[in-house]
Amino acid sequence: MKQNFNLQTVVLIGSGNVAGHLAKAMSEAGLAVVQIFSPHIDHARKLAAGLGAEAINNYSEITTNAGFYLVAVPDGKIAAVAAGMPLVHGIVCHTSAITPMQVLEKFQHYGIFYPFQTFSKNRKVDMFRVPFCLEASSQDVLDALQLLAGRFSKSVYVMDMEQREKLHVAGVLVNNFTNHLFASAEDFLKENGMDTAMLLPLVRETVAKILELTPDEAQTGPARRGDISTIEKHMDILKNKNDLKEIYHIFSQQILKKYHE
Amino acid sequence: MKQNFNLQTVVLIGSGNVAGHLAKAMSEAGLAVVQIFSPHIDHARKLAAGLGAEAINNYSEITTNAGFYLVAVPDGKIAAVAAGMPLVHGIVCHTSAITPMQVLEKFQHYGIFYPFQTFSKNRKVDMFRVPFCLEASSQDVLDALQLLAGRFSKSVYVMDMEQREKLHVAGVLVNNFTNHLFASAEDFLKENGMDTAMLLPLVRETVAKILELTPDEAQTGPARRGDISTIEKHMDILKNKNDLKEIYHIFSQQILKKYHE
Repeated sequence: MKQNFNLQTVVLIGSGNVAGHLAKAMSEAGLAVVQIFSPHIDHARKLAAGLGAEAINNYSEITTNAGFYLVAVPDGKIAAVAAGMPLVHGIVCHTSAITPMQVLEKFQHYGIFYPFQTFSKNRKVDMFRVPFCLEASSQDVLDALQLLAGRFSKSVYVMDMEQREKLHVAGVLVNNFTNHLFASAEDFLKENGMDTAMLLPLVRETVAKILELTPDEAQTGPARRGDISTIEKHMDILKNKNDLKEIYHIFSQQILKKYHE
Repeated sequence: MKQNFNLQTVVLIGSGNVAGHLAKAMSEAGLAVVQIFSPHIDHARKLAAGLGAEAINNYSEITTNAGFYLVAVPDGKIAAVAAGMPLVHGIVCHTSAITPMQVLEKFQHYGIFYPFQTFSKNRKVDMFRVPFCLEASSQDVLDALQLLAGRFSKSVYVMDMEQREKLHVAGVLVNNFTNHLFASAEDFLKENGMDTAMLLPLVRETVAKILELTPDEAQTGPARRGDISTIEKHMDILKNKNDLKEIYHIFSQQILKKYHE
């Protein structure tokens, strides 16, 4: 027999960026965020204030009657939170890509509720576009989570641990490494007394093209053209910049291989 | 005595993306584009049509009385174009970062007019934000070029060959390599049967953060946190993907070194 869940009431464990953005999105979607737990009661209070939620910092204060418990804490702290929480009746989920859902198996109903996005303190995120990657301890729980995620995102996926880990790797490439590339280019201009603001229109256009064209259509530059003499010149310009030279070499070789072999 | 130039009339040599975007921007800024030269007369005609310009494909047809001649052709073709052109009286510039301006020294007045942006056929670029990097055969020519560039861009720089080459390298990093990172991540998801559209909101937010925060503030992820066990797990996930593994390794090592040494 199909089990129905009422996920109208939410307890949030955590008070960081992920917790904050999800709490607001759920509240705006008409869900009742009833409690926010954080070992730092100040953090919990700050987040709870705008949402009409109760701020708590003691596991024993967690209500066992809410429909949905979202554990949005750093990967390394999920197991300790699960151990500390009372045996609640609702569905308990964490938000980590790389932590198996079995870390929550002491609960009757559990799963994963992983938003594939980078959240920062002072930036509003368009939650409706954020992909939510779900996994659950049973089909009924999964059905309930899909309905829940669908209330604030149009982009809901069911995904096992293996796929989630791969997606996480792709996220590191696209987010962390793109940022490192930009930081390296910026440092390089700074060291040479040039205005780093010059990079911004190019960054903007690079991404506009990524969003509009296929990567093959958008790929340009010396390596794409097979222009070895410019590549060699660039390597020479970078001769005293080991890190940049290493990046330049590897990317150029990979692009050359992709388009000219 | 200061020499004054009247750059009100423009002849454009070339009919590619750079030529097309600059022709439109100059025309919109109230300059008169009088001729467009291309060895492919069809290309010249197509571009000339909307601008009230004459399309030509014979060097002898180039008027010698225009104020400004812009050679917007691939790097490897600039010398041949300069050799073919008649000895005009106005200022002759090319748009290449990596070609010395001496390639134009047969003319009396010459320089560099390098726009630091990627131009595509069907995408409108906000020219007002595009950095223009100028160099000139004399101070008077430079003054004239600065006035000219200022008519359609708010971002005008004077730069010598060495700086321009370094800026070009930074552009390759920020544009070509960011695109390659994204293409690699997309391929990786495709190979694993996942929806590549999941990457787009993250790309969007990554760049929004680059435009708003400092790179240090925006840098997140396993390497930034010094989370070696996640890095090792990711390297294992990529064990059969040599190119991605190579990128992952080098970026992680560089970020670790930057923040944890």
